[in-house]
Amino acid sequence: MSIERMAQLAKGASMTLAAADGDLKNKALEAVAKALNNNRIAIIAANEEDLERSGAENLATPLMKRLKFDNAKIDGVIEGINSLIGLEEPVGKTLMSKELDEGLDLYQVTCPIGVIGVIFESRPDAFVQISTLCLKSGNAVLLKGGSEASLTNKILCNIIAESTQTAGIVEGWIGLLESREDVSEILKMDDTIDLIIPRGSNEFVRYIMDNSRIPVLGHADGICHSYVDKEADLDMAVRVVADSKTQYVAVCNALETLLVHEDVAEAFLPALKTELDKKGVVLRGCDMTRHYIDCEPANDEDWATEYLDYELAIKVVDSMLEAVGHINHYGSGHTDAIITKDVDTAMTFMDLVDTGNAMWNCSTRFSDGFRYGFGAEVGVSTNKIHARGPVGLEGLLIYKYKVIGHGQIVEDYASGKKKFTHKPLKRDFE
Amino acid sequence: MSIERMAQLAKGASMTLAAADGDLKNKALEAVAKALNNNRIAIIAANEEDLERSGAENLATPLMKRLKFDNAKIDGVIEGINSLIGLEEPVGKTLMSKELDEGLDLYQVTCPIGVIGVIFESRPDAFVQISTLCLKSGNAVLLKGGSEASLTNKILCNIIAESTQTAGIVEGWIGLLESREDVSEILKMDDTIDLIIPRGSNEFVRYIMDNSRIPVLGHADGICHSYVDKEADLDMAVRVVADSKTQYVAVCNALETLLVHEDVAEAFLPALKTELDKKGVVLRGCDMTRHYIDCEPANDEDWATEYLDYELAIKVVDSMLEAVGHINHYGSGHTDAIITKDVDTAMTFMDLVDTGNAMWNCSTRFSDGFRYGFGAEVGVSTNKIHARGPVGLEGLLIYKYKVIGHGQIVEDYASGKKKFTHKPLKRDFE
Repeated sequence: MSIERMAQLAKGASMTLAAADGDLKNKALEAVAKALNNNRIAIIAANEEDLERSGAENLATPLMKRLKFDNAKIDGVIEGINSLIGLEEPVGKTLMSKELDEGLDLYQVTCPIGVIGVIFESRPDAFVQISTLCLKSGNAVLLKGGSEASLTNKILCNIIAESTQTAGIVEGWIGLLESREDVSEILKMDDTIDLIIPRGSNEFVRYIMDNSRIPVLGHADGICHSYVDKEADLDMAVRVVADSKTQYVAVCNALETLLVHEDVAEAFLPALKTELDKKGVVLRGCDMTRHYIDCEPANDEDWATEYLDYELAIKVVDSMLEAVGHINHYGSGHTDAIITKDVDTAMTFMDLVDTGNAMWNCSTRFSDGFRYGFGAEVGVSTNKIHARGPVGLEGLLIYKYKVIGHGQIVEDYASGKKKFTHKPLKRDFE
Repeated sequence: MSIERMAQLAKGASMTLAAADGDLKNKALEAVAKALNNNRIAIIAANEEDLERSGAENLATPLMKRLKFDNAKIDGVIEGINSLIGLEEPVGKTLMSKELDEGLDLYQVTCPIGVIGVIFESRPDAFVQISTLCLKSGNAVLLKGGSEASLTNKILCNIIAESTQTAGIVEGWIGLLESREDVSEILKMDDTIDLIIPRGSNEFVRYIMDNSRIPVLGHADGICHSYVDKEADLDMAVRVVADSKTQYVAVCNALETLLVHEDVAEAFLPALKTELDKKGVVLRGCDMTRHYIDCEPANDEDWATEYLDYELAIKVVDSMLEAVGHINHYGSGHTDAIITKDVDTAMTFMDLVDTGNAMWNCSTRFSDGFRYGFGAEVGVSTNKIHARGPVGLEGLLIYKYKVIGHGQIVEDYASGKKKFTHKPLKRDFE
């Protein structure tokens, strides 16, 4: 099937799926969970073929780990589907209602966005998560996974398509793109695809953002900062900064640049270095930093680098405002923290810092959907519109206005014959 | 000043403005209203120069009307500013709060988007409206008006910049772009400008959307539909369709294509034609339509045309679902209505139709911010993300997460030493 045809089918299916009721969607999700459970052997066999081929092609170990889809990972996605079933129906919620005039009522009601394009590298669990999130929220979805996972993706897509169709969901709501050329095709389909969610490496996400006019939900970089204020509890600062940097270095909410107030640099930096040396963190500092501790010199490039490794850039600043200026210039709007005992300084910092997650006296690593208790996570967004920070199901929803009248015409209001009442209705659309 | 410099200043100012409190912003809005009132003579003199020059250049009459900024229009914008002052402070509202663990609290708090780029043709009232909306919502703004209004825009920008600065608002939050080349410059500034709001002709908006990677809030087309169902009250249908088409033809929510169920076409179409003939509406119909009434033939191009004139395309369909299919294929997602007495048909239509405003038994012309009672209107959006339909102040806002801890680190939760509580807080961030 051509990509255009698949996209047209998805567009058509999205219209029907938008009106599917919650029970039907939950029944279909149950069917997916059951079918995944019943087809473990075939799924794992397909995945082992993918692993064997990718191993022979010398795929890097971390990527092999992500590619592997074993019984434990199948348990994980089934558990995810079950918790998704338990979530409140997200479509058809009345956000606002208002009487415009007697017998003329306005409702603002949540609805799916339409067709979601998802592009990700070789993580079969992400394939299941994102497609079931789309189903729960009533969106059609086109997925392009990494070629390393081609056989796993194919069987997963078939299982999900067939089990949902049997459960009564419209055919064509899910489509699998298989060739690398398909990606550039779908990036051009701004008439059919309403939102693209790229999951994968930063470079990959940046490529998507740079090559499509379709809105993108995601983040290219996670250049996260902690600022240690002159009023910081320095013991807490050492502990929190070390956790932010080293608890897990390969993730987007790990600390990349530390900013330290000049008044506490002398007391704080040697203590921090002692702690970070234990983990083998390479430090790169500005001139002032190197005045207090022995480390590599940092340059402008370091302030703009997401190391994702045991490396940390350090800069001494003369004020909270200089720290904010640095963060707003070099940061990626992901997660930025302040360590201070001063309430006013903390509040001002959190207001001024242009970021999805502003933290006070805790680790930058807390910013994620699981830790925030969001249940399902679509991704983390550094967008300035629609959805920001960790994004749950609500990132896959928009709203429409519904107006119910009894033959009203605008001319009666334009001529002054009738007047709008504009009274809150406090009633759900049903 | 170079455009880059102006944009950098706006970006810097946006950081400060984000933390400005509501009283300060309202005081500044009062100062703008007062300064506009005090400078009427100079404003009108500048506008008269613009009018004279544009008249000599044979600017079309409707555009001359939009360009004109007289005492009545100044009264209008001052009234608008006063109602803006009366609106609840939109920044800093807590949307959600949650205890992650004892002493570790999460808040989702509204904040401005950042720097808004506004590009519009020659409407000085729009200049004042949009810049004051940006101020109220804490956003910096760069405005590019039509060259016809250059002197009016210049004096308005100076008045607004000076009066707000005197009132204590950071310098540089508002900037005026003057040359045509500036537009293509700002369309490239996706690092600095967070959202573009184009106001003007459809072609113009389409050009902006096609030539920038910055998110655009607006609509290029308003191809609105009414569907007259087989269960319609035909007298009501004639009245509502006539109002939708003729109450004001030059606007985006005017009816452009009428869909009629085949069972009622014979009874309805001649009655409608009698009514529309009184207003001199040119009808273009499908073959079936021309079987019942005498009119021009319609082709595929008509279904995709926004006439903005006394013209109407008509198609006979065999079901509500065919009507929905037509609308979702040819429509622009602006406003689409059904006329029927059947509740189920109406509900299904409103669910299935992919549009910002789904109407039942009333005129398409109701879909606008004023008639919806939104107060301030940023514009009408046909986007599928962020904001849809008539957009008020909330379209200029996003949110950030704020996390307040007491030295918590993620390692304690990863190791199982501590557990998240994830309890609703029901407390505002303060």
